[in-house]
Amino acid sequence: MKNLKFIITYNGTAYNGYQSQPNGNTIQDNLEKCLKLLLNQAVSVNGCSRTDAGVHAREYVFNVKYDETLSGIGIQGIVKGMNALLPDDIAVVSCEEVGEAFHARFDSKGKEYLYLLDNSRERCVFTKDLALPYFYRIDMERMRTAAELIKGEHDFAAFCKAEAKAHLKTTVRTVFDVKIEREDRFVRIYVSGSGFLHNMVRIIAGTLIYVNEGKRNIDDVKEALDGGNREKAGITLPACGLYLNRVFY
Amino acid sequence: MKNLKFIITYNGTAYNGYQSQPNGNTIQDNLEKCLKLLLNQAVSVNGCSRTDAGVHAREYVFNVKYDETLSGIGIQGIVKGMNALLPDDIAVVSCEEVGEAFHARFDSKGKEYLYLLDNSRERCVFTKDLALPYFYRIDMERMRTAAELIKGEHDFAAFCKAEAKAHLKTTVRTVFDVKIEREDRFVRIYVSGSGFLHNMVRIIAGTLIYVNEGKRNIDDVKEALDGGNREKAGITLPACGLYLNRVFY
Repeated sequence: MKNLKFIITYNGTAYNGYQSQPNGNTIQDNLEKCLKLLLNQAVSVNGCSRTDAGVHAREYVFNVKYDETLSGIGIQGIVKGMNALLPDDIAVVSCEEVGEAFHARFDSKGKEYLYLLDNSRERCVFTKDLALPYFYRIDMERMRTAAELIKGEHDFAAFCKAEAKAHLKTTVRTVFDVKIEREDRFVRIYVSGSGFLHNMVRIIAGTLIYVNEGKRNIDDVKEALDGGNREKAGITLPACGLYLNRVFY
Repeated sequence: MKNLKFIITYNGTAYNGYQSQPNGNTIQDNLEKCLKLLLNQAVSVNGCSRTDAGVHAREYVFNVKYDETLSGIGIQGIVKGMNALLPDDIAVVSCEEVGEAFHARFDSKGKEYLYLLDNSRERCVFTKDLALPYFYRIDMERMRTAAELIKGEHDFAAFCKAEAKAHLKTTVRTVFDVKIEREDRFVRIYVSGSGFLHNMVRIIAGTLIYVNEGKRNIDDVKEALDGGNREKAGITLPACGLYLNRVFY
């Protein structure tokens, strides 16, 4: 058995998220359909995370194990074949052989997400599903003060989709860093951490913009982190601005 | 009568070009439909050019005359109303009142187009209708040498869509400048001039990449400019990479 580690990038606009669904319109379904053709056998891929519908990825990692005696194709051929067969909003960035034990999800030491705001009075007609239009003036210092509080180990219960909490043993997670950068009209919020709750990055970004607008203050953020009260955090921002940026191993 | 000059931007992917069509799926049809509602009267807009299906605009100019006694709305209201009513791939950048004589097309002193190449081994999943994927290595010096030849007044008969030539008195045009710039994976070809033939910028950009690939040489470009032989120029590149960048008055 060979084990391959892929890095792919995708525009999630047209998909029902990463994870396989009965209707087949997911990233995983497309990957498995192409790999079945190229490797001459049915395979299951192990993705590093389950991104939601409409969420994008700049560097998504998955691995796949297969029987090389059935495939008769090298890594170069697999990459070329994937990029020819996949829809044009999914692309393979790289592929390498790894040890049999490697698993894209279990071996991940953390991930970095990006939330992209288009901070302009005019909407950008070229990034309509790729950034959240945000018209208010941004006070970078105010947002960064709130971002500092979010770093570190906390109970992020207030930063989690309600329905997702019931199944979890703990809502304690560690955020490595929250960085906010501006480049012309675009503001990028980078959130890295060891693990994430459902909607956590979208609620963190939504809290930062609520702080910017004065709908929440610094004490609200502290209370959200201490007391787990969802009302003290901000809105869950839409999927269109969210990117899985990279995965750490 | 008032006369307003608008600058708009649009992502042309979903449209059958700028100019009004019976099916209504054009930029002009959308502008006139919105303005009719906002100005409380039927109006015709004067566009600065007729961009083809799939071509984009960063700064497109049009003007519209209307009877202000029927409208009861100010410029601010018109801009806000347009940006609320227009589809989200068309946006108003600015609007100002101009003299009654101003005409967006007849008063234009020239235009600048941009052709955008995505020059990378991997396709970019975020710009699929917004740039032409181009995998070959680019020799900037070679392309710039060919670009130099194109500047100035020439008979651009070899750089015009065949069907369009029959209706023209002359195919002589003046190109002010051809600039080629690289920024990371993207290569931008800017072509500015006093007037353009149908497909002229797409054929100029196609000639430059044919020169890059060795499918045409510098002498072919000279012959295309001197003899009007379409075969000596390069391919007509697809609409997706073309932008009307700005209009000079």
